[in-house]
Amino acid sequence: MLAVTILGNNSAIPAFNRHPTAQVVQNNEQIFLIDCGEGTQLQMDRYKIRRSKINHIFISHLHGDHYFGLIGLLTSMGLLGRKTELHVYAPGLLRSIIEMQLQAAGAVLPYLLHFHPLVTEEAIFEDKTISVRCFNVTHRIECWGFLFKEKKNLRKINPQEVNRHNITATYFDKLHNREDYISPENSIIKNELLTLPMPLPKTYAYCADTLYDEQLIDKINNVDLLYHEATYLDDLKERAAKRFHSTTKEAALIAKKAGAKKLLLGHFSSMYESLDEFITEACSVFENTELALEGNCYII
Amino acid sequence: MLAVTILGNNSAIPAFNRHPTAQVVQNNEQIFLIDCGEGTQLQMDRYKIRRSKINHIFISHLHGDHYFGLIGLLTSMGLLGRKTELHVYAPGLLRSIIEMQLQAAGAVLPYLLHFHPLVTEEAIFEDKTISVRCFNVTHRIECWGFLFKEKKNLRKINPQEVNRHNITATYFDKLHNREDYISPENSIIKNELLTLPMPLPKTYAYCADTLYDEQLIDKINNVDLLYHEATYLDDLKERAAKRFHSTTKEAALIAKKAGAKKLLLGHFSSMYESLDEFITEACSVFENTELALEGNCYII
Repeated sequence: MLAVTILGNNSAIPAFNRHPTAQVVQNNEQIFLIDCGEGTQLQMDRYKIRRSKINHIFISHLHGDHYFGLIGLLTSMGLLGRKTELHVYAPGLLRSIIEMQLQAAGAVLPYLLHFHPLVTEEAIFEDKTISVRCFNVTHRIECWGFLFKEKKNLRKINPQEVNRHNITATYFDKLHNREDYISPENSIIKNELLTLPMPLPKTYAYCADTLYDEQLIDKINNVDLLYHEATYLDDLKERAAKRFHSTTKEAALIAKKAGAKKLLLGHFSSMYESLDEFITEACSVFENTELALEGNCYII
Repeated sequence: MLAVTILGNNSAIPAFNRHPTAQVVQNNEQIFLIDCGEGTQLQMDRYKIRRSKINHIFISHLHGDHYFGLIGLLTSMGLLGRKTELHVYAPGLLRSIIEMQLQAAGAVLPYLLHFHPLVTEEAIFEDKTISVRCFNVTHRIECWGFLFKEKKNLRKINPQEVNRHNITATYFDKLHNREDYISPENSIIKNELLTLPMPLPKTYAYCADTLYDEQLIDKINNVDLLYHEATYLDDLKERAAKRFHSTTKEAALIAKKAGAKKLLLGHFSSMYESLDEFITEACSVFENTELALEGNCYII
């Protein structure tokens, strides 16, 4: 099960009890943190996300509303006695910022912190069940998006049938991969008789602060859930462009052109107390849109 | 009127809805911020402390729970269009940390930030109504306390009497300073007839993270309100000493020996959900003790 929980949905200045950007992607038991604005660890407490469950943190860019909470989280993890290695994927400069702050405190983290500077569009994390790829987005400074892609076996075992034919687990990998079964007596049982179709692997694209940019489309084609920033309503298109941000309708247009199944809007400007018009405007272009609301979990 | 409002009273890790250290000292219309743990700007929103009212920020030391919220506050002030100069008084290294983070964001603050590195025990701020002095406290790293001292005229004008004698405001400074009035006709009116006694100027001492250290006493003698950390209950005296912190009774003993009028305990360890024993233990040594509770305003 792939799901996203929003911890912060506001841009720049916290306002109206909305917090700077942070969200967690859950992949079964794994929890990935994306961005870590000020107060993220407090939001994690509020929404019962355990710090110890996080082993990989992805930071899109070095505007403060996307990372000022990271050093506090790293330090707290240390104070709580963490021993498990932690991986941070971020623009390279962040490493010196973290090191300088640890040094100023005379602190040494009790766990190994692997810092992975983002350099080029590539797969930055991969295990048996999921892969994460980073890609460039267009903002005022170096900025990255992240594409999460479930990995799934092509077929799943039909337990009754494999039992009936006394097929042992050592053969399952082949069956997952559509191979037919060949018995010790050389008889063949068709794969379709022994397996069931799997739901398609799900994908999630996180597009942090970005200008409206059609170059994004190819990078996130047919994604199941697209998180795209929408800092402003559409009447402030010019301001959005000047600040390398997007509007509601621009985000929706990217979702539409990319063939996304669903769009999640976030990174709302502190100008707006009510978010009602955000959803109305976006839906007029791309119907399956939701607002990224803090504490909400969006199952993909 | 001198008063302290607590924004964060917890040590190291935020817990039980207690936040890392921050507090504001109000001197009539002026607001000084002392320490700025993560989330301080959110706490300021919660307790209706306006960012724009703050012109002077004092940072005791560079453990994160005392300053990780500063960069977010400085940045927000900029985004809100601040033009007024801002003064930060802190250990010197903080300047590079701030500069590096602004540089990484490609950000330039729209206001002048004066950084005053704390170097020696001295008066670091002074105007007509108040002075602030920094003094060393004993912690694992360089750490400072701050002493706020109201300035008051020696006497205040008795409006009825000065009107009766047709004394103009140009003479008031002299009257404030106990001088007698000499009329154009060379008659003398005694100061006591024209003025009233003033209440004594109030003092507030902020002792950030500190070991129990009797060297403090001389620096805060007879203070009206003493804020002193009490990270642990008294059974953890050894742990406190090892970590350069204090216990309830140690804080109370400093208050007693310094002849403080009142003690405010803060910087509670995340080990403790209930703070009841903190007050019981401290009061057994120094009766006029209160807990520094978030949102509470303590008038001095």
